[in-house]
Amino acid sequence: MGTQEDLDVIFHPKTVAVVGAPRKRPEGWPGIFGSICDYGYAGRLYPINPGAPEVEGIRAYPDLVSVPEPIDLVIISVPASAVPAALRDCIASGNRNVHIFTAGFKETGEEEGLRLHREIETIAREGGLNVIGPNCMGVFIPRQRLVTWIGAPEKSGPVAFISQSGGHAQDFTNFCARLGINFSTVISFGNALTLDSTDFLEYLADDPDTKIITMYLEGVKDGRRLLELVSQVNPTKPVIILKAGLTKAGTKAVASHTGSLAGGERMWDAFFKKSGAVQAHSLEEMAFLTLAFRHLGTTEGPRVAVIGHGGGIAVSAADACSRAGLEMPPFTPKAAKELRSFIPAGGNIIRNPIDAMPIFRDMETFQRMIDLVSSQPQIDMLIISLSLDWLYGLDKGRQIQKVTDYLSGPVGNDLHGKPFVASWRTHRNNPAIREVGCRLEKQLLESGVPVYRGFEQASMTLARWARYHQFLHARGLK
Amino acid sequence: MGTQEDLDVIFHPKTVAVVGAPRKRPEGWPGIFGSICDYGYAGRLYPINPGAPEVEGIRAYPDLVSVPEPIDLVIISVPASAVPAALRDCIASGNRNVHIFTAGFKETGEEEGLRLHREIETIAREGGLNVIGPNCMGVFIPRQRLVTWIGAPEKSGPVAFISQSGGHAQDFTNFCARLGINFSTVISFGNALTLDSTDFLEYLADDPDTKIITMYLEGVKDGRRLLELVSQVNPTKPVIILKAGLTKAGTKAVASHTGSLAGGERMWDAFFKKSGAVQAHSLEEMAFLTLAFRHLGTTEGPRVAVIGHGGGIAVSAADACSRAGLEMPPFTPKAAKELRSFIPAGGNIIRNPIDAMPIFRDMETFQRMIDLVSSQPQIDMLIISLSLDWLYGLDKGRQIQKVTDYLSGPVGNDLHGKPFVASWRTHRNNPAIREVGCRLEKQLLESGVPVYRGFEQASMTLARWARYHQFLHARGLK
Repeated sequence: MGTQEDLDVIFHPKTVAVVGAPRKRPEGWPGIFGSICDYGYAGRLYPINPGAPEVEGIRAYPDLVSVPEPIDLVIISVPASAVPAALRDCIASGNRNVHIFTAGFKETGEEEGLRLHREIETIAREGGLNVIGPNCMGVFIPRQRLVTWIGAPEKSGPVAFISQSGGHAQDFTNFCARLGINFSTVISFGNALTLDSTDFLEYLADDPDTKIITMYLEGVKDGRRLLELVSQVNPTKPVIILKAGLTKAGTKAVASHTGSLAGGERMWDAFFKKSGAVQAHSLEEMAFLTLAFRHLGTTEGPRVAVIGHGGGIAVSAADACSRAGLEMPPFTPKAAKELRSFIPAGGNIIRNPIDAMPIFRDMETFQRMIDLVSSQPQIDMLIISLSLDWLYGLDKGRQIQKVTDYLSGPVGNDLHGKPFVASWRTHRNNPAIREVGCRLEKQLLESGVPVYRGFEQASMTLARWARYHQFLHARGLK
Repeated sequence: MGTQEDLDVIFHPKTVAVVGAPRKRPEGWPGIFGSICDYGYAGRLYPINPGAPEVEGIRAYPDLVSVPEPIDLVIISVPASAVPAALRDCIASGNRNVHIFTAGFKETGEEEGLRLHREIETIAREGGLNVIGPNCMGVFIPRQRLVTWIGAPEKSGPVAFISQSGGHAQDFTNFCARLGINFSTVISFGNALTLDSTDFLEYLADDPDTKIITMYLEGVKDGRRLLELVSQVNPTKPVIILKAGLTKAGTKAVASHTGSLAGGERMWDAFFKKSGAVQAHSLEEMAFLTLAFRHLGTTEGPRVAVIGHGGGIAVSAADACSRAGLEMPPFTPKAAKELRSFIPAGGNIIRNPIDAMPIFRDMETFQRMIDLVSSQPQIDMLIISLSLDWLYGLDKGRQIQKVTDYLSGPVGNDLHGKPFVASWRTHRNNPAIREVGCRLEKQLLESGVPVYRGFEQASMTLARWARYHQFLHARGLK
């Protein structure tokens, strides 16, 4: 069997064994085995512990050889010094798919860790094992109800996450769940003893449940293969990558964390330019980007119109969009004249960005504005900017609800096929306004509208999303 | 009387008149006059309205000439076409200090607006008026209970804000109030007909109530004077500036907003380098910077130690600090050995950043860590990084409370005089954890500890705060 067929087994595991499932839950955390039980794993679960007849009420076995059926995924959670013996037990029992949770190998940079690393590498290579890890959280597969940590989101979705960090696997999936984004397959693979990001990427390229691929990479063993794979996958399944260790301090931290070689910044710049992959600089940025790719169609270019209220904030919006790489074309004299016919001059600015208080007082005017701006051929997409402090002051939130209801659905009739995102902000220390903001956010997200807090998020995200589509257009890839 | 003496009157106004105070409050907003009443202005207030005997229960006068005493600040809130007559009334009544709220002048870029601009400019110059505005919100002086908008913070504090935008004056002071930062004097000055940012800066330089000066600038009339003033003030009162319109789209938006010339990016780069002023790129950044300057003492250099838990997040921290311009020196072999004596090897990283779970389980270990790291001569300051999702999982927040209590006070005994900030984050969709985070934030802020959400905020802020102090050191200015 090849690696890809093995990965198909790993990502649809009907049987899981945990070597080192403890008799009792550790203090302050359910542990790997407890977490798997609590999340309600859908397959058959085997605790391996020579000193316990059962664990969490499930019959335990002294070793893998004693288990009466083949194990699709063996999870090893014993001290580092006991990992070699556990791997030999995998080989003896004919179980080739292994996740090593245990840390304390090459990432320590210390002699004993390096020795153990060499030992398990030899065992794994000679025994033909597929190893996820060591020093990682392994797989999270919502559809199989399999996860090794607490607090994971409940739902499945079309996004995959290949993460060298277990903490990031938890944080990113949780943060995305708040944005209504869910996952098909999540892999935390740590030191990458045998299986590397490229193996997972190759699998996910053909996985029908996965439409968007996100990655957190500290190092990669075969850069050329990564470039080839990403270039090939990216046009149909956008690949969004947070590459860590691009700074001097980051490179050192990467070595301490997963013992990886981070690679130089210039090399990675070239990688992103060549492959067209979307670069993120933090988990949060990656989540905001995923949100855009999840809900927006496509775009012809980076030309945006910003529609909102407030002069200073319009200037901030223009600066933020410009810095992010978006263009803000002016309206034609004809369009400006039409705008002036229903937006009075005093205190309103009908250039781009638009600062027009009247549209927020009357929904018909709002609709007319969206319709007119969207119809402009030199505008590719819209940012609707909502100043909640001011809108709330009007009528305690009723107008905000009207705007939200319109943006959640009917707006589609006025957009002339153009994509849009919403951006909201509140600065007042008023819990009622923040509450209204969170409700607005929830309703828009549930309606498939990307919504962001402030212009930095909105403009950064739209700019990179647009650049992705421009890349594909320029190369005739769509 | 010179401008500076006039400004002293404007900023301590015992009498205020509002020309155009409406008989009835406008819909959905109390209006300028209503806002002044609602906030509870401490001086004597005169509504000017020829058609009303009283406004909001206060005796009204038909014009300024009829008012029985001198007015320290006249606020003009009539249609643009009526502003020239109102200014002539100021001159006739001997009242020279004027805030013009009204918009519709040169910022429109349209013929009538430009003509009116020239007209009021001539009247103001010839009459020797001190004009704040037009097209702005004027002054907000908490100690005099004077403000022209709703929802302003209640307290006074040591920060001043000179803002060309009225919306930003509201948003920034509100956002700062959430961080426990309050204001001595806030000025929104719009089109800057006669009084410009430099006039206000000169006044605030000697204002005993002001310790930190923040500015939002779209344009400036006398760049050389600004450079001289900022260079002179900055060493004793840090000057933090958000300069808008540094991009192509931003420059255009600035022209539409306050009719200002934004100036080129290169010129402003040189300005910041020469003056040592602290640059912010958004209102939020400016608030985070103000928070650091408000509470932190000084620093020898930009060398930071990060103390937290989690391998991936440690890498993110290293990248964020490095990108921001902070250095992360390694610990000496002696210090590393001592760290290893109480932090076990497995799963913990005792390089910089430190990833050490045990310190969050036991306060004595936490204290020992802070003490040891702070005592290192190559470390200038600390970031304490708190992963609330994980900490909350331990015991539903009791440990977080212990850490918060320690960081709110006793930590001072272990810091060897080094400054520190806290950084927290939660990614889980758990309202209880967010609630705990907000409590932590509140308690730390009330204890004078700068606390940030995530590393981008914390590292950006510390880096620029440190650069300010390095600038002063390098020039022998402290």
